[in-house]
Amino acid sequence: MAGDLVTVLGGGQLGRMLGLAGIPLGLRFRFLDPVAGAPAAAVGELVVGDLADETALAAAARDATVVTYEWEGVPAAAARFLATEFPVRPGARSLEVSQDRLTEKETFRRLGIDTPAFAAVDDRAGLTNAVAEVGGLPAVLKTRRGGYDGKGQRVLQTDADLDDAWADLGGAPLILESLVPFDRELSVLAVRGLDGVVACWPLVENRHEGGILRMSRAPAPDLAPSLQRAGEELAGRVLSDLDHFGVLAVELFEVGGRLLANEIAPRVHNSGHWTIEGAGTSQFENHLRAILGLPLGSTAARGPTAMLNCIGELPDRAAVLAVPGTHFHDYGKAPRPGRKLGHVTVTATDFDELTARLAVLGERFSPAA
Amino acid sequence: MAGDLVTVLGGGQLGRMLGLAGIPLGLRFRFLDPVAGAPAAAVGELVVGDLADETALAAAARDATVVTYEWEGVPAAAARFLATEFPVRPGARSLEVSQDRLTEKETFRRLGIDTPAFAAVDDRAGLTNAVAEVGGLPAVLKTRRGGYDGKGQRVLQTDADLDDAWADLGGAPLILESLVPFDRELSVLAVRGLDGVVACWPLVENRHEGGILRMSRAPAPDLAPSLQRAGEELAGRVLSDLDHFGVLAVELFEVGGRLLANEIAPRVHNSGHWTIEGAGTSQFENHLRAILGLPLGSTAARGPTAMLNCIGELPDRAAVLAVPGTHFHDYGKAPRPGRKLGHVTVTATDFDELTARLAVLGERFSPAA
Repeated sequence: MAGDLVTVLGGGQLGRMLGLAGIPLGLRFRFLDPVAGAPAAAVGELVVGDLADETALAAAARDATVVTYEWEGVPAAAARFLATEFPVRPGARSLEVSQDRLTEKETFRRLGIDTPAFAAVDDRAGLTNAVAEVGGLPAVLKTRRGGYDGKGQRVLQTDADLDDAWADLGGAPLILESLVPFDRELSVLAVRGLDGVVACWPLVENRHEGGILRMSRAPAPDLAPSLQRAGEELAGRVLSDLDHFGVLAVELFEVGGRLLANEIAPRVHNSGHWTIEGAGTSQFENHLRAILGLPLGSTAARGPTAMLNCIGELPDRAAVLAVPGTHFHDYGKAPRPGRKLGHVTVTATDFDELTARLAVLGERFSPAA
Repeated sequence: MAGDLVTVLGGGQLGRMLGLAGIPLGLRFRFLDPVAGAPAAAVGELVVGDLADETALAAAARDATVVTYEWEGVPAAAARFLATEFPVRPGARSLEVSQDRLTEKETFRRLGIDTPAFAAVDDRAGLTNAVAEVGGLPAVLKTRRGGYDGKGQRVLQTDADLDDAWADLGGAPLILESLVPFDRELSVLAVRGLDGVVACWPLVENRHEGGILRMSRAPAPDLAPSLQRAGEELAGRVLSDLDHFGVLAVELFEVGGRLLANEIAPRVHNSGHWTIEGAGTSQFENHLRAILGLPLGSTAARGPTAMLNCIGELPDRAAVLAVPGTHFHDYGKAPRPGRKLGHVTVTATDFDELTARLAVLGERFSPAA
């Protein structure tokens, strides 16, 4: 009756969706989150506390079968602290690598995975050198640590932008990355089981606006089979290198028929939400299966699927659900500009139908959203 | 942030699965159940109390947007009591009709829906008359009220069985039903929205043992399209007649190419659990959409799907999940002989593959289960 307890560091929408996927597996959940009433509270016990507070961490992990996380901002030290007593999956290494954009890019390079040109930036002179090193402008200056959804970044179009960008971001360790004129953004979601078996979902096509993911379509339309294989292959190399258990996403650029790796998310990922309705097994269920040592489920797509993020406000639920093939995902969060409050999934029998449904749906999302 | 509150009378596995389907819709749940730690407690607030206790009912329904139930044993008086203040969907009438096997059968007859021959039995002499009225033995003597999963029933094979059966069941109002030599058992799951729109899932083939559902396959293999239409048509007549909002199941016999209606379940139903993975929209989500006045989702099957009940004990989770296409549903209940503790769903691309997967899976269910 009292099934395995899974402790999740972070209690946002990803934790909520992990809980929804895990309760049928007989799992119980306890979440640690600094915010009372965090979205995951609907599906388990919520310990309110700081993710760096060892007392809170210990309270959250008590009696846990396994500890996992739903946010890559979890301090690696927290993972290490808990790992002395509990299996923490994925481990601290996945956090460390993905928390530092330079280490992340160097990991890709070490594994023979193409990336946009990049260079470390430690001072103002280094910035000028880095521009040359990455092959000139345009380029993006980013803090090595922190920053998400477009925060902590400055695009440099001309040399005149360097001083401003330095004034804004200088002081923290930085990385300069060549701004690649990509054909489109993709991501690969992959999962590695305790036995080392890796499974990948079909690559996803992503559209960002203002640095925030707006829409994903999967399987990525018109993707060359060689790119699917290349995506799976690079994800497998990253998973093995990190000795990562569970789901991991790699954000990619498609450029002239090849893939460049941009970023690792060592957790379930926004561009994988379509798998709830669109794949044989969702990223959330397979993450839990993986970290518990259970066999992984099918990652095959059931058909063309799209996911639309609801940013800042939720569209009208009834209007959305009136569009055939739609499912609504409300994270139970208070509205705030720029905040991810939910998502809508649309399934269809082919991409033409999906496109038509998306067109109708687009009108039902407020233009402000 | 604080979404619609749905109060569910009953907090068993059906309530639990309603909660899992409803949380993504932004719903909050409160369940009323006599048992502390009932399965639905994992997905909402649990009020522990008797379903006939007006104080408990009022506490459970406070601030509810809508009240529904997950057990047809809910006293109709409880539904009527709450209906003075809250929308109760489906209404008390659906409970009343389905709680009395005679009223149920008479409803089918009034609506022109074929049933096995039946007759009311009020005394021992009436039993002898009823045998003649239903066309002789074999027949089943059942209590008009109560009884489920084969309880409260006696099969009469010869006249010698009458006295024994009467000694066992006499005293309560009874119904005698002809024991139909059916080709197979089917069920139709249907849902009716607040706007009166009806949608039906593909008919399900069910196999019972010892009066308990063991396996469902959907869409029912090799079903004549005329029978699918007939099933939808009769379900629509029942839904309209009862002015029922939400999901309803009708258990059916297929006999010589036609359908006989056996029983109404005015709620989400065990033979509809396959819809979670196997249909465009699950019975649980569509029930909630219906009672909240939201548009219904697609009831189309995604492919051949089977559902196996876990009775008395759960099979080994890892062994089950090692079979491709399986999903595990643990209700979080303490094991007890004859108790439904969970179910396993198996999906496949065709019925041959489904049959092969079921064969492997069958070996992983304990023979004692």
